[in-house]
Amino acid sequence: MTLSEKAIEDASRRLRAFLSPTQLVPSKGRTGVSLKLELNQPTGSFKVRPAFNSILAHESEARSRGVIASSSGNFAQAVAFAASKLGIQAQIVMPSNTSPFKVERTRQLGGQNTQVVLSGPSFDERWALTERLQRQSGALMLHPYDSVETIAGDATVGLELLEKIPGDFAVTVPTSGGGLLAGIARVIKVRRPGCRIIGVQPTANGSMLKSFEAGSRVKVPPFVTRADALVAATPGENTFPLVCQHVDAMVGVSEDSLWEAVRFLYRSEGLVVEPGGAAAVAALLEGGLDVQGLPLVCVLSGGNISPQAHAQILEFTS
Amino acid sequence: MTLSEKAIEDASRRLRAFLSPTQLVPSKGRTGVSLKLELNQPTGSFKVRPAFNSILAHESEARSRGVIASSSGNFAQAVAFAASKLGIQAQIVMPSNTSPFKVERTRQLGGQNTQVVLSGPSFDERWALTERLQRQSGALMLHPYDSVETIAGDATVGLELLEKIPGDFAVTVPTSGGGLLAGIARVIKVRRPGCRIIGVQPTANGSMLKSFEAGSRVKVPPFVTRADALVAATPGENTFPLVCQHVDAMVGVSEDSLWEAVRFLYRSEGLVVEPGGAAAVAALLEGGLDVQGLPLVCVLSGGNISPQAHAQILEFTS
Repeated sequence: MTLSEKAIEDASRRLRAFLSPTQLVPSKGRTGVSLKLELNQPTGSFKVRPAFNSILAHESEARSRGVIASSSGNFAQAVAFAASKLGIQAQIVMPSNTSPFKVERTRQLGGQNTQVVLSGPSFDERWALTERLQRQSGALMLHPYDSVETIAGDATVGLELLEKIPGDFAVTVPTSGGGLLAGIARVIKVRRPGCRIIGVQPTANGSMLKSFEAGSRVKVPPFVTRADALVAATPGENTFPLVCQHVDAMVGVSEDSLWEAVRFLYRSEGLVVEPGGAAAVAALLEGGLDVQGLPLVCVLSGGNISPQAHAQILEFTS
Repeated sequence: MTLSEKAIEDASRRLRAFLSPTQLVPSKGRTGVSLKLELNQPTGSFKVRPAFNSILAHESEARSRGVIASSSGNFAQAVAFAASKLGIQAQIVMPSNTSPFKVERTRQLGGQNTQVVLSGPSFDERWALTERLQRQSGALMLHPYDSVETIAGDATVGLELLEKIPGDFAVTVPTSGGGLLAGIARVIKVRRPGCRIIGVQPTANGSMLKSFEAGSRVKVPPFVTRADALVAATPGENTFPLVCQHVDAMVGVSEDSLWEAVRFLYRSEGLVVEPGGAAAVAALLEGGLDVQGLPLVCVLSGGNISPQAHAQILEFTS
């Protein structure tokens, strides 16, 4: 797959009617660092970008057949929201071990148009059920991270950074299957090669970390991470070559750092961020990020965490 | 004072180089309601708009004489930030009973350029000290809510709403001395008279509530409110006529509702908002808001609250 300039510009044009650019704000706690607030999207994560772009790119098909998607939670909410706004039927497969908060939000956002189906907890079980349901219904499959439309939608985050920042910069991006990372890297490196793109993944997952190091796609065995948004067990067929071509470095973060980042973002920035969405900041807090003297943007990719789970991380007891 | 279209357009043009439009996001917890996220400004409140506009409107004067401002906290941070960005000396008077969190943030944001002076706790003591210091230094006085430049800067919030929302809407605005309310009301009612503008003030303060009802400016005796951002004891000479002319209704909110709104915004929206910044939502939660069937925008004017104070409101113990 190649990701054309036209695909990215089409995505940007399509999204304009439904989504505003998210804010880029200076960090209050760290100088030289800015935060890209994807957590303020209407569904609390960047995933509304690929959701709208994927549906709108195939709108008549989506309208006649409905859509189906598989997601640990943030893409689910995004597809439910976009489908509801566009009056399109949606079937969404979520693993049984995802946050009940995300399941409930998905139901609420989708309303009448959305059917939520729970699968077994593993990545493989989730996909097997999704493919079976898709064959039954014939619905349009929306991929959470590996289609052209998804990656092009994700790339609009990078477009907004280029519009906002005049010179070269470094950007750290939370990474699961690699859609957001691939999209951001592709659009930024082609237009401004002096920028530095760094993917961040929980070491507990490690699928993109290991694949990037090996130079080929690795599928990792089942694992547990506090970042329920970063659970893809393997890079995408399409995201991986883009990541290899355009990403400068991959960095692993510990489970403790993810929670520390959630605490830092609450205490120093007044932001409620989920562990996966805080991964870029976790890498910053661990230290040793090689930004080569450039100003740093941390993408805060999602904020969907229940107040109970957030309070637990903050070490509050209610 | 009249507030001209030109003053508002000048403000909008001046701010564009330093501030991005804040996001307007649909409420996750209430349908038909959107939230204007002024808490995501670089200093955590809308006050950077009047701070930048006031300094830039008199830039050479500010540069040669420095600036002075009096503030319970949010305007202080905003002036410190704007002055620091522009390389201008600033003296800022804050009451001794303001949140230590806001005092510390002001020092941090201003850095070398800013001197923070604490006054006695009352509104009168704060102003007496500010005026005395101004006479000594000859610095340019920046008014937190009552100058043309301040109100025009505040009005840019209304401009952004008009650009974003195609039809008529209702908007609720936290109110202290009335700068934000006057600015928003002026720009919206002239351009789209079918909109409905509602000011919200803690009943414990009540200065604008009583003045609006009486039709003349009332100064209230010393009071205590949990909304440390909404403590002006009287409407401004300039804001008050604009409020009388363009605002449809004033609504009072209880101290309990302010805290309930802070809880609601955290639990349902994932947002960290200070009590004063949550006043528009407090009015919504109290019920009985007359929006005449229009979609409602709640302006979340500020988010500057310490994690400790926030946790207390959330009834967490750490």
